[in-house]
Amino acid sequence: MSQQSAAHYLRHGQTPFFRLPVVDPAAPDAYAGADAILLGVPYDGGTTYQPGARLAPYHIRRVSALVQSYHPVHRTDVFAHLCARDGGNVVFPPFDAAAVRAAVQAEVARVVAAGAAPFVVGGDHSVALPAMRAVAAAHGPLAVVHVDAHHDTTTAVVWGDPWHHGTPLRHAIEEALIAPGALVQLGVRGPWGGADDGTLVAQFGATTIRADDLAERGVAEVMAEVRKVVGARPLYLTFDIDGVDPAFAPGTGTPVPGGLSAREALQLVRGLAGANLVGMDLVEVCPPLDFSDLTSHLAAHLLYEGIALLARR
Amino acid sequence: MSQQSAAHYLRHGQTPFFRLPVVDPAAPDAYAGADAILLGVPYDGGTTYQPGARLAPYHIRRVSALVQSYHPVHRTDVFAHLCARDGGNVVFPPFDAAAVRAAVQAEVARVVAAGAAPFVVGGDHSVALPAMRAVAAAHGPLAVVHVDAHHDTTTAVVWGDPWHHGTPLRHAIEEALIAPGALVQLGVRGPWGGADDGTLVAQFGATTIRADDLAERGVAEVMAEVRKVVGARPLYLTFDIDGVDPAFAPGTGTPVPGGLSAREALQLVRGLAGANLVGMDLVEVCPPLDFSDLTSHLAAHLLYEGIALLARR
Amino acid sequence: MSQQSAAHYLRHGQTPFFRLPVVDPAAPDAYAGADAILLGVPYDGGTTYQPGARLAPYHIRRVSALVQSYHPVHRTDVFAHLCARDGGNVVFPPFDAAAVRAAVQAEVARVVAAGAAPFVVGGDHSVALPAMRAVAAAHGPLAVVHVDAHHDTTTAVVWGDPWHHGTPLRHAIEEALIAPGALVQLGVRGPWGGADDGTLVAQFGATTIRADDLAERGVAEVMAEVRKVVGARPLYLTFDIDGVDPAFAPGTGTPVPGGLSAREALQLVRGLAGANLVGMDLVEVCPPLDFSDLTSHLAAHLLYEGIALLARR
Amino acid sequence: MSQQSAAHYLRHGQTPFFRLPVVDPAAPDAYAGADAILLGVPYDGGTTYQPGARLAPYHIRRVSALVQSYHPVHRTDVFAHLCARDGGNVVFPPFDAAAVRAAVQAEVARVVAAGAAPFVVGGDHSVALPAMRAVAAAHGPLAVVHVDAHHDTTTAVVWGDPWHHGTPLRHAIEEALIAPGALVQLGVRGPWGGADDGTLVAQFGATTIRADDLAERGVAEVMAEVRKVVGARPLYLTFDIDGVDPAFAPGTGTPVPGGLSAREALQLVRGLAGANLVGMDLVEVCPPLDFSDLTSHLAAHLLYEGIALLARR
Amino acid sequence: MSQQSAAHYLRHGQTPFFRLPVVDPAAPDAYAGADAILLGVPYDGGTTYQPGARLAPYHIRRVSALVQSYHPVHRTDVFAHLCARDGGNVVFPPFDAAAVRAAVQAEVARVVAAGAAPFVVGGDHSVALPAMRAVAAAHGPLAVVHVDAHHDTTTAVVWGDPWHHGTPLRHAIEEALIAPGALVQLGVRGPWGGADDGTLVAQFGATTIRADDLAERGVAEVMAEVRKVVGARPLYLTFDIDGVDPAFAPGTGTPVPGGLSAREALQLVRGLAGANLVGMDLVEVCPPLDFSDLTSHLAAHLLYEGIALLARR
Amino acid sequence: MSQQSAAHYLRHGQTPFFRLPVVDPAAPDAYAGADAILLGVPYDGGTTYQPGARLAPYHIRRVSALVQSYHPVHRTDVFAHLCARDGGNVVFPPFDAAAVRAAVQAEVARVVAAGAAPFVVGGDHSVALPAMRAVAAAHGPLAVVHVDAHHDTTTAVVWGDPWHHGTPLRHAIEEALIAPGALVQLGVRGPWGGADDGTLVAQFGATTIRADDLAERGVAEVMAEVRKVVGARPLYLTFDIDGVDPAFAPGTGTPVPGGLSAREALQLVRGLAGANLVGMDLVEVCPPLDFSDLTSHLAAHLLYEGIALLARR
Repeated sequence: MSQQSAAHYLRHGQTPFFRLPVVDPAAPDAYAGADAILLGVPYDGGTTYQPGARLAPYHIRRVSALVQSYHPVHRTDVFAHLCARDGGNVVFPPFDAAAVRAAVQAEVARVVAAGAAPFVVGGDHSVALPAMRAVAAAHGPLAVVHVDAHHDTTTAVVWGDPWHHGTPLRHAIEEALIAPGALVQLGVRGPWGGADDGTLVAQFGATTIRADDLAERGVAEVMAEVRKVVGARPLYLTFDIDGVDPAFAPGTGTPVPGGLSAREALQLVRGLAGANLVGMDLVEVCPPLDFSDLTSHLAAHLLYEGIALLARR
Repeated sequence: MSQQSAAHYLRHGQTPFFRLPVVDPAAPDAYAGADAILLGVPYDGGTTYQPGARLAPYHIRRVSALVQSYHPVHRTDVFAHLCARDGGNVVFPPFDAAAVRAAVQAEVARVVAAGAAPFVVGGDHSVALPAMRAVAAAHGPLAVVHVDAHHDTTTAVVWGDPWHHGTPLRHAIEEALIAPGALVQLGVRGPWGGADDGTLVAQFGATTIRADDLAERGVAEVMAEVRKVVGARPLYLTFDIDGVDPAFAPGTGTPVPGGLSAREALQLVRGLAGANLVGMDLVEVCPPLDFSDLTSHLAAHLLYEGIALLARR
Repeated sequence: MSQQSAAHYLRHGQTPFFRLPVVDPAAPDAYAGADAILLGVPYDGGTTYQPGARLAPYHIRRVSALVQSYHPVHRTDVFAHLCARDGGNVVFPPFDAAAVRAAVQAEVARVVAAGAAPFVVGGDHSVALPAMRAVAAAHGPLAVVHVDAHHDTTTAVVWGDPWHHGTPLRHAIEEALIAPGALVQLGVRGPWGGADDGTLVAQFGATTIRADDLAERGVAEVMAEVRKVVGARPLYLTFDIDGVDPAFAPGTGTPVPGGLSAREALQLVRGLAGANLVGMDLVEVCPPLDFSDLTSHLAAHLLYEGIALLARR
Repeated sequence: MSQQSAAHYLRHGQTPFFRLPVVDPAAPDAYAGADAILLGVPYDGGTTYQPGARLAPYHIRRVSALVQSYHPVHRTDVFAHLCARDGGNVVFPPFDAAAVRAAVQAEVARVVAAGAAPFVVGGDHSVALPAMRAVAAAHGPLAVVHVDAHHDTTTAVVWGDPWHHGTPLRHAIEEALIAPGALVQLGVRGPWGGADDGTLVAQFGATTIRADDLAERGVAEVMAEVRKVVGARPLYLTFDIDGVDPAFAPGTGTPVPGGLSAREALQLVRGLAGANLVGMDLVEVCPPLDFSDLTSHLAAHLLYEGIALLARR
Repeated sequence: MSQQSAAHYLRHGQTPFFRLPVVDPAAPDAYAGADAILLGVPYDGGTTYQPGARLAPYHIRRVSALVQSYHPVHRTDVFAHLCARDGGNVVFPPFDAAAVRAAVQAEVARVVAAGAAPFVVGGDHSVALPAMRAVAAAHGPLAVVHVDAHHDTTTAVVWGDPWHHGTPLRHAIEEALIAPGALVQLGVRGPWGGADDGTLVAQFGATTIRADDLAERGVAEVMAEVRKVVGARPLYLTFDIDGVDPAFAPGTGTPVPGGLSAREALQLVRGLAGANLVGMDLVEVCPPLDFSDLTSHLAAHLLYEGIALLARR
Repeated sequence: MSQQSAAHYLRHGQTPFFRLPVVDPAAPDAYAGADAILLGVPYDGGTTYQPGARLAPYHIRRVSALVQSYHPVHRTDVFAHLCARDGGNVVFPPFDAAAVRAAVQAEVARVVAAGAAPFVVGGDHSVALPAMRAVAAAHGPLAVVHVDAHHDTTTAVVWGDPWHHGTPLRHAIEEALIAPGALVQLGVRGPWGGADDGTLVAQFGATTIRADDLAERGVAEVMAEVRKVVGARPLYLTFDIDGVDPAFAPGTGTPVPGGLSAREALQLVRGLAGANLVGMDLVEVCPPLDFSDLTSHLAAHLLYEGIALLARR
């Protein structure tokens, strides 16, 4: 069974991601046979400025009902071709950040062990680290495409915590979850706290393409370069919605003007076609700051484009 | 199994009404053993002014997750005491108003036949008529408590349609779904189209208590009178959220200032304790006009108070 | 011709106040035969804090289309009984405050000269002064009922201007537009700039009933007292929407919590039945701060109640 | 008489489209001598997802007062050059979809018979069909430029109705309102329900330019191609605001991220200069989902650009 | 120096609470000579549902500029009579909840040691515990008036944390910060998680007055009883804005319909006149969920009424 | 002392621009030693359509706390390199437009006299004239880069006032504040009131680049031309936020669709690198029409880019 019919959806009244069947996460073989599992992580305890991303899974599920199955560019019926399922939300004790990371890592590991690709719907960006840990544990050092307004390689200095939502890429580099030279950062912009903010990724040999440059060169050309950097490595896509301009994604906690348009963002994900995607997250959607579900609609489409990469293979 | 734990709810990521178990409506005995079935009716094709009520079931389900089970006034654990279930949404062809009415009537009849009380979550007020038809077919002429800013006894003259959301009480009276003298209208206010707008209910012997009078006399005294009028008859409660003042329920399509406060509205439903409630609807919540889910939160609490009436019996 | 039918209104696509006929203000006898003329004054150049009231006439006109004609409490068909008309907006050079006052005074005088009662829809409260001048010029010293969160008797000290929206009552008193002892202030609340803020009205013998006291005593009792104070004098009602609590009227520039409910506000106007109303203004509605037209809907109903006082006579 | 002065507009307080004179639609020769007639169609009964477009004519009229007359690119004073009028709204029984279509067709036919070009302001996209019928009846098979996120060639299968807002292009093709090869679709994007969604237009020889391709190639180049396709045929422009990206037009019921920017949309209409425009509609603006009138302002400017095409001829 | 003039405030462009002088918190004797110190605590790490209260101090400061100094009911110029100061925000590492509590306790202790009364502006309700600890350490067991929709005596069972925003009253009771019999809870309402939710406060001999009962009896009568319970004990007022109905205070994370009106809330604080107030907090204002600063305005006025209690002594 | 640390900012609870030190404007040498002084001008008395820009300084200050110091493109630590200060707001009597202009001119002159560059944060665009007067008085005729949707060369004809927010460029030209040929207008678009609207700037030899052309040619190429026009002249940048498209800057009073993207706007300011900037204003941000601080965030970043031009020199 692929995506359920509109009638089925209306009948049940619930809102799983993309009207997909919901698996019972308590079942031992919940993910058996699946190609893609969508997991919500309603956690924003790693937020430094405006919180609210914990509410994103509910809203993205709700509006994702509007997204259909057939991809007219890839010419494939995504949810007919693939077995994609809503795996529910990861369960965790919300006031214990270490336990949250452990729970996300364990559940993503379970998805990967079942042979499926995890699509983690945050929640704030701190949930990307345990997801990358689980994926890298199974697939080895990853190529990582990181869309964001920020480098996310902060230390504990400013906020007194080494694990907040501005830190996941630092950990991923330091824990060798990313293969040397295989990190791509897209959409970075805005002022830094200091001259050294870009040092870590530069020393790591990351390919950093600022938002301005991405627009200047065009998404098509940039993504051709990105695909070369990524090569055949297992690819993890971590998509912070603040990589997109606040006009297109107002519902996010640390907005930085001058980001990608929705069109560029969708083309960016589509431009990974051919790569060996093994996992993705979509984080930092903050519904209390959203308007008319603009940001949730975009997030749903970005997830769809990510899943479609699997279908096209 | 009563209301599911917060952990269960978080795990599954879905949002059934009040975190209740969801029945499979396709199963022949879906409603067997239930005391109360919540049905969504995402339909607003009967709206004369500002539409959007079709979206209410999704939003009320979402915020109802915050409503707990134990009623400290009635001193009963509502969802432990009762078997209440989310029956999903009624399925219908959305552009065929007659078919919508037929579908609602059939599904409500199925609930009633299973011995459960239906709680219909609209949708616009036109869905109340088929619900009352089904309930009256099983229980005989009903006592009806009707909370609304309007009499809802309009004819086809103005809008060229005899079934729109301003008409259900006219039909209920004319079809003898309501026992003579057993109609109570609460919260009516605002100017009329003409001098005869109140004639039908007056001739029918309705007890009409305008919003001003309800406040003047106090909810406790008024509801004592209402309980006398209702007596032991099977009682149907049709609650149009515009009976409440727009300050407390901004998300509705035909707002009329001067209505009930949220406190009065909740007391009103609670004040039906002891009556023989056999069904309820909650209609005209319009999420696109709502702010910070104010109206959806209130609607969820009003539904909870309605279900609690069963638990208290 | 009374209020136009919904069909007529829909057909023309325009939104005059209450679907009333629009007079051509250029015609010399534009107001001849009218009982009530509604005039918009889209001016907020007298605002000290948050501006935006200049946009109110457009929005109140738009939502007033929803208000019907028959008053079920007064048992009269208001717009059938009366000749009420939309007189358009007063024209003025918006950056010349003195010229604005002159223009409002001249137009209101023209309405009064035609034997009609003016209903001035602001705009900020500074437009009430020229309206009162014109009415008092024709009718002599007025009884004034003033609904507001503030006394509006400020001097030029703080803002360097003697005519801003916090000053009209001082001028009305000093210019003897109000008969001694015939000023009633309702809804006043909140802290003052200094101990003397209430001195002027106290010395003038005003009847001041704070919002708390109005609620404590009840609108019915208070309005009985007000009617006694007013007596048979020509009565002018100046209604600043911030007399109402911001929950019921969020769209206003200087909100003060703790005000009247919408129900109390409507009862207050209705409670003037029997008085000799010769004019009214409704000011300080600020649409950019409004939500779902809450404040505009309330303003339209308050104006309707004011006009209905004429019909009841 | 051309566009009314700001002073005139302020004086009358009404808000006709672009401050234009309002014709009395009841007059038999209401449209005589006009070049362009703007008609509101406050109907959204054909909406499948989020309704509210019925309110658009009121809001677009209101904000269109800000649009001036002289076109600095075309170097023409549009409303001085042309006789353009606000023809009010089409009257129809809102709950009878067939009657709505008949009424729109009849009124548009009346405009065309008077020698004027109709500019239909929806309302949902289902109102485009009767407009095209009336225009094609007079002018013969049309060239149609269709701006939209969707193909709008759905059948009755999903929603049980052959006339909803996702169907007008199917009917226009099947009823031969469009000349073979003379359909242009611009802005299409997003996933389809199935592989065949694009078959009908492909077989019809339509020129379909997806949003990505339009941006890639640039509006100027694309519109040169479009003008060639259109040639000297009578041209009808049907503009669904959801062709524009939701960031620029959040007030619409079925948003799809990745659409045209406002700049591209305006250039697109301007790029039809030289074509033989005989009618236009602007549909799917949904004010309850709009913010700060963003979508209504854009809609007003798009209509102005459409009318300016006539002035330039 | 008392409250700064509007001119001073305008000139500096900053927004301290109530236009009060700002002390330099780094100075050792920062609070010397002060009667009241306002402290912001921009922390919401204890939130279980919708976060955002960390932003409240900035917004309450901003709108508090509108609140004037003279109290017309108490007939005293509050900020002339008292030395009240803005003490800035408490500094803490935002991801270490224990350290946050320690920092709040230390800073409040410093205020108390200087002989001033602390007014703590949250942040979520978890910050009330360290504030009460500091105050009780200096003054001995306190009388506590607790305004809230909830009992706030939850354990760690549901959310796995004993210190979240639903727990401060449990700790205050268990740590004997409150004198036996000297706890008053006002505004409690809504369903409970279980039958035992009220047991702790009942056994502690708390005076619990539900929102319905408070309205039924009237604030004046209830507060007379409360003053008797409180007596001459040092009184701490902990005010959770969700004690107020969401219509009056939409900007809060766990809204429960049926609460106090703004008028009742203000009267409630005013009704403590004569008691020995030694500290107050105002918590759970959540600006991202607020509209037109409604909740921030109310919060500012409630704080003013609290400070005015000191001035009246 | 450069930009204050986040900890300092959090501690003091105030919100100066960019967490900069606040100077005491009463001190005679308040600006001594400064390179850049930010001045708020909370005035919108020159607004013709939707007011509210007077509130901008408070909101831009608040969100500017998020902007960091190091500029990764210019590779300089802006606030370490420069002495930039928040000079508070200009003080003026808000109802006396001439006095407002005089006060702004005097304060800006004081900044310039101290050798610092003024950065004026409006308020409406009428405040740009006195700022330009003060700067030109010190530096001689200026090169002016003017970003705007409008030419701003209106006369008193329409609104009866020669100084409103649509007039500053006319005065600047007529008063010879701008060197002949040294005016650049960027982002102009939308219809004009008449054919002559562009005559004044054309005769003055201005370089006018419409929004469409700017996008067509690309910001980089356009700014190269602009730098040539500007040359070594003292440059004043007057930035009306409505030069930006309403999707990126919804909070403005006279929105015109089709403007610059946020990315283009930021590149535009950055593209002035090398020019001799002597002053800048950022005007027409209207917070009541903003959403989630989108416009204020953009304004803060544009000001940062302006200040960074000084640092780069």
